[in-house]
Amino acid sequence: MTEPAPVYASGVDHERLTAQLRFILEVDKLKRILRRNLLVDGSRRENDAEHSWHLALTARVFAEYAPQGTDIEHVVELLLVHDIVEIDAGDTFVYDTRMSASQAERERVAADRIFALLPKDQATYARGLWEEFEARLTPEARFAKAIDRLAPMLANWHTDGGTWVQYGVTKDQVLEKVRIIAEGSEALGSYATALIEDADRRGYFSRK
Amino acid sequence: MTEPAPVYASGVDHERLTAQLRFILEVDKLKRILRRNLLVDGSRRENDAEHSWHLALTARVFAEYAPQGTDIEHVVELLLVHDIVEIDAGDTFVYDTRMSASQAERERVAADRIFALLPKDQATYARGLWEEFEARLTPEARFAKAIDRLAPMLANWHTDGGTWVQYGVTKDQVLEKVRIIAEGSEALGSYATALIEDADRRGYFSRK
Ligand SMILES: [Ca+2]
Repeated sequence: MTEPAPVYASGVDHERLTAQLRFILEVDKLKRILRRNLLVDGSRRENDAEHSWHLALTARVFAEYAPQGTDIEHVVELLLVHDIVEIDAGDTFVYDTRMSASQAERERVAADRIFALLPKDQATYARGLWEEFEARLTPEARFAKAIDRLAPMLANWHTDGGTWVQYGVTKDQVLEKVRIIAEGSEALGSYATALIEDADRRGYFSRK
Repeated sequence: MTEPAPVYASGVDHERLTAQLRFILEVDKLKRILRRNLLVDGSRRENDAEHSWHLALTARVFAEYAPQGTDIEHVVELLLVHDIVEIDAGDTFVYDTRMSASQAERERVAADRIFALLPKDQATYARGLWEEFEARLTPEARFAKAIDRLAPMLANWHTDGGTWVQYGVTKDQVLEKVRIIAEGSEALGSYATALIEDADRRGYFSRK
């Protein structure tokens, strides 16, 4: 772990600021956690930090497709922290069933460590955001998850099938993820369905 | 420019969604715009997209150091879009006075092109966010800019002086940036001052 500079700022609670800095420095590591999907131009794999930025911005642009009453600023908050546990747990490819089995436990242990770096009140709040995202019990969490599932589909479509082709993913497997999108946003679910039909016509899915 | 998939989603305004997708795909390029500073672990240069994510999260963690009444969710919004113009204009190193002279004009032209990809109402709104950030006339913009100035100082301190050493930056040059931090947040200005004094003791600044 990276220890903050040993300096004292006048008029600031030193212990509290140090805990906040420890968290801020620690999450820098999210920039080195690579996802399976490529950037839209196909040049390299995407990392979790830039992915989280892209999702937060996409949520704002697509705000009108969230169910009425959805708090978009809260969606953004969820997306900013949603992948932080992957600093310890790593990115689990959504079509990797073997890794997905142990994912929940690995991510819980990671959350225990990383969010606890913050001062207690903020640690509880930030961990709550992550749990809310995972549980998908609020419209905000469902919309955030929909954006998270749609983004790699866009990247795959624009990189000749991307991870669908690379890992031999079937159309049925992808349609399961489309269902998660539709649960967060009817309009985006409809778009994802159309996109997957087109991807199927282009032969991007495995027939196995 | 990357053209969205030619697919039609039922019950969605096709033209509007296509414009939104065009913007979302275009800003993917921010992931390839490199800044001068390194990641906190020194492993490579930081890109603008992951930088924007880190700032947005840092703004939330440091919310209590913003002047009373500051709308932190608006700060986050400003930070999510603040570097998008660099897709065309490139990153301008804050201590590069030659490039800084032409920066405003290059960034204005970039804003004209990139934000205009969005549907008109959203284009106006998003461009307004960028202009607000640049003008620093609101507490939200001043706090956002403070976070933007503090982040590379943290990275430099943790990478043995980083760009300060690499480019022979003087303490006076850095103290000018500290002033911008103090204008956005008294507490963070105080912390930045202490950090720079410590960096000076460590010999990270040029004496020229
Ligand atoms: Ca993930």
